[in-house]
Amino acid sequence: VLASLAPQSRVIDITHGVTRHDVRAGAVALRSALSFMPPGVHLAVVDPAVGASAPDGIALRRAVAVRVATEERLLVGPDNGLLMLAAERLGGIVEAVDIGLSPHRLEPVSATFHGRDIFAPVAAALARDESLADAGEPLDAAELVTLTLPQPSREGDALIAHAVTIDRFGNVMLNADHDTIAAFGLKLGEPVTLDIAGTPFRARYARAFGEVPTGELLVYEDSHRQLAIAVNRGSAAARLGLRRDGRLRLLRAS
Amino acid sequence: VLASLAPQSRVIDITHGVTRHDVRAGAVALRSALSFMPPGVHLAVVDPAVGASAPDGIALRRAVAVRVATEERLLVGPDNGLLMLAAERLGGIVEAVDIGLSPHRLEPVSATFHGRDIFAPVAAALARDESLADAGEPLDAAELVTLTLPQPSREGDALIAHAVTIDRFGNVMLNADHDTIAAFGLKLGEPVTLDIAGTPFRARYARAFGEVPTGELLVYEDSHRQLAIAVNRGSAAARLGLRRDGRLRLLRAS
Amino acid sequence: VLASLAPQSRVIDITHGVTRHDVRAGAVALRSALSFMPPGVHLAVVDPAVGASAPDGIALRRAVAVRVATEERLLVGPDNGLLMLAAERLGGIVEAVDIGLSPHRLEPVSATFHGRDIFAPVAAALARDESLADAGEPLDAAELVTLTLPQPSREGDALIAHAVTIDRFGNVMLNADHDTIAAFGLKLGEPVTLDIAGTPFRARYARAFGEVPTGELLVYEDSHRQLAIAVNRGSAAARLGLRRDGRLRLLRAS
Repeated sequence: VLASLAPQSRVIDITHGVTRHDVRAGAVALRSALSFMPPGVHLAVVDPAVGASAPDGIALRRAVAVRVATEERLLVGPDNGLLMLAAERLGGIVEAVDIGLSPHRLEPVSATFHGRDIFAPVAAALARDESLADAGEPLDAAELVTLTLPQPSREGDALIAHAVTIDRFGNVMLNADHDTIAAFGLKLGEPVTLDIAGTPFRARYARAFGEVPTGELLVYEDSHRQLAIAVNRGSAAARLGLRRDGRLRLLRAS
Repeated sequence: VLASLAPQSRVIDITHGVTRHDVRAGAVALRSALSFMPPGVHLAVVDPAVGASAPDGIALRRAVAVRVATEERLLVGPDNGLLMLAAERLGGIVEAVDIGLSPHRLEPVSATFHGRDIFAPVAAALARDESLADAGEPLDAAELVTLTLPQPSREGDALIAHAVTIDRFGNVMLNADHDTIAAFGLKLGEPVTLDIAGTPFRARYARAFGEVPTGELLVYEDSHRQLAIAVNRGSAAARLGLRRDGRLRLLRAS
Repeated sequence: VLASLAPQSRVIDITHGVTRHDVRAGAVALRSALSFMPPGVHLAVVDPAVGASAPDGIALRRAVAVRVATEERLLVGPDNGLLMLAAERLGGIVEAVDIGLSPHRLEPVSATFHGRDIFAPVAAALARDESLADAGEPLDAAELVTLTLPQPSREGDALIAHAVTIDRFGNVMLNADHDTIAAFGLKLGEPVTLDIAGTPFRARYARAFGEVPTGELLVYEDSHRQLAIAVNRGSAAARLGLRRDGRLRLLRAS
């Protein structure tokens, strides 16, 4: 559909590997990827498995297109929070439209394939430089569904963090970015204690898995500069019994 | 090979997700996708697992390229029916050539990788606007291997349909298109009975999975406007004990 | 990153299907693919799972870019042997640079995502025709890590070969290319004996799986003209108890 309606545009797939229905993992992936992507129109679709979903899991939710503040970028996708972490990173939303009845949509719009029938033709029109205002009905950005991640905090000597995403290897990404890590002042090689519901685990703040013995825990800054926990050749999530949104206290080991 | 031999052409992957050896699923996917693809040369390869196959399952079958009636589209692939549903949708075949010994082929032609050695270089030549007639030996289109899907029919008050494809979630696509559904006159929300070999199952004609309770059957029009059966968060194929080509009677519930 | 920094370049994915950490399989795939690829800059990344690895398995190894002799091709990747089979096929390396501190790299360079932070920006710069010499520090090609495959040999009437790679179907690729096979003089249809650690197995030299009964062994020349062993609808690796680097003697059956 993109090639048919915006034949001059280059199409770049960021990923088709987001776990089905995992809106948060999609939102994190989109935020991370956009830092490295050329400006343009960014289309994303992940829909949750909700009660009122259409046959393939598409919620009966708004379809939207938005413009962000800091760059000439437009985001197109479902109004379920998927676009919001990227939008926030890019300075927030300065213009939003509801594209559910967009004049660009393909008719008949199927109940189950908005990617093809709504998102792609609208993204193609925007890529052809048609105006955002003409792509749908104006929306107040404040009405959009937000996506809230748990926030890190300090509690005495401890950094309180939460598991944001867990990958298929059991590596756990925490809600602490480079600045938070820097402010907490961890030093490479330093031992730390991870306290999970009162149970302490010893780990080491390292740059690389191989800096700790096989089977041992490490805390590290991942390639998106987020604090993460891993086990060298093992699963940190399994070791720690940590699920998404699970809370932990990180302390310098004495 | 395409990039080497037709460097000016854009290459669009439709799917690499067709189940190995499932020619029919490939033919259905190709037919569905072409409605949304720009005109051009369409290359498809799916080969059945047959006795006389080459090492990776390629049958000892003809390789062909064909021109269809309604648009400036050319199809390239094995003569095993894979191209035929798309060709039929596009008005039928008006010109066909056997490309097994095409002057465009890469030599030596391997026994097992016709995609690389025959189909791709021929598709590239056609994309460079070389003539179809020069790509191989002329063939009578009537000699091509056909692909026959079961046809729906009426039997009194019942619509007789068959399972055409079953996806990995157990959703069942039937051989009844939008016009057949419209002629049968189902109304959204209406209860229906699916009679499979004498066993009745209650379902609802719905637009979306969430319109029926978790675990219940629904009948719906899928994104390609074909009648389909699903279970909300379950497998319709498992529930109904339905396999490919399985026959069912669909009745308005009284 | 490539689209941002080399927007005029076409990006072609060869494969994302190499088994994690399998440097040899990546090297074989790269060598095979380059024969069919347009000239250009070829970026490859496969890192072994080694003790001193970074969080996602990246070894603390050099990052390099090299020019090969026979064509205007540049290879970019880790200095762990991955590039070496392709380089050898292309006439050997005539210029090499260490790109670990390349002026083109993205800073901060993450410990775990050299594909994004080193390899891609360097490949993009080379694709923009920036010079190889300016991409890093000069290296003596003789210092690069080599990748040695076992070599076939003759032992009386037998061809001694080794399993180079085993695919997910259990097909075994041997270290014997077309010329070796031709010199050994096998004829299509001929019965052969595979002697593995003293245990003989009967097979047939065939062009296609279907030329032997279901469940029987065949020896064939694969689509990259390497000798390979398969079982028609079965696993040759399992049948023969053969692992990577496993040695076998191939004899004409009397």
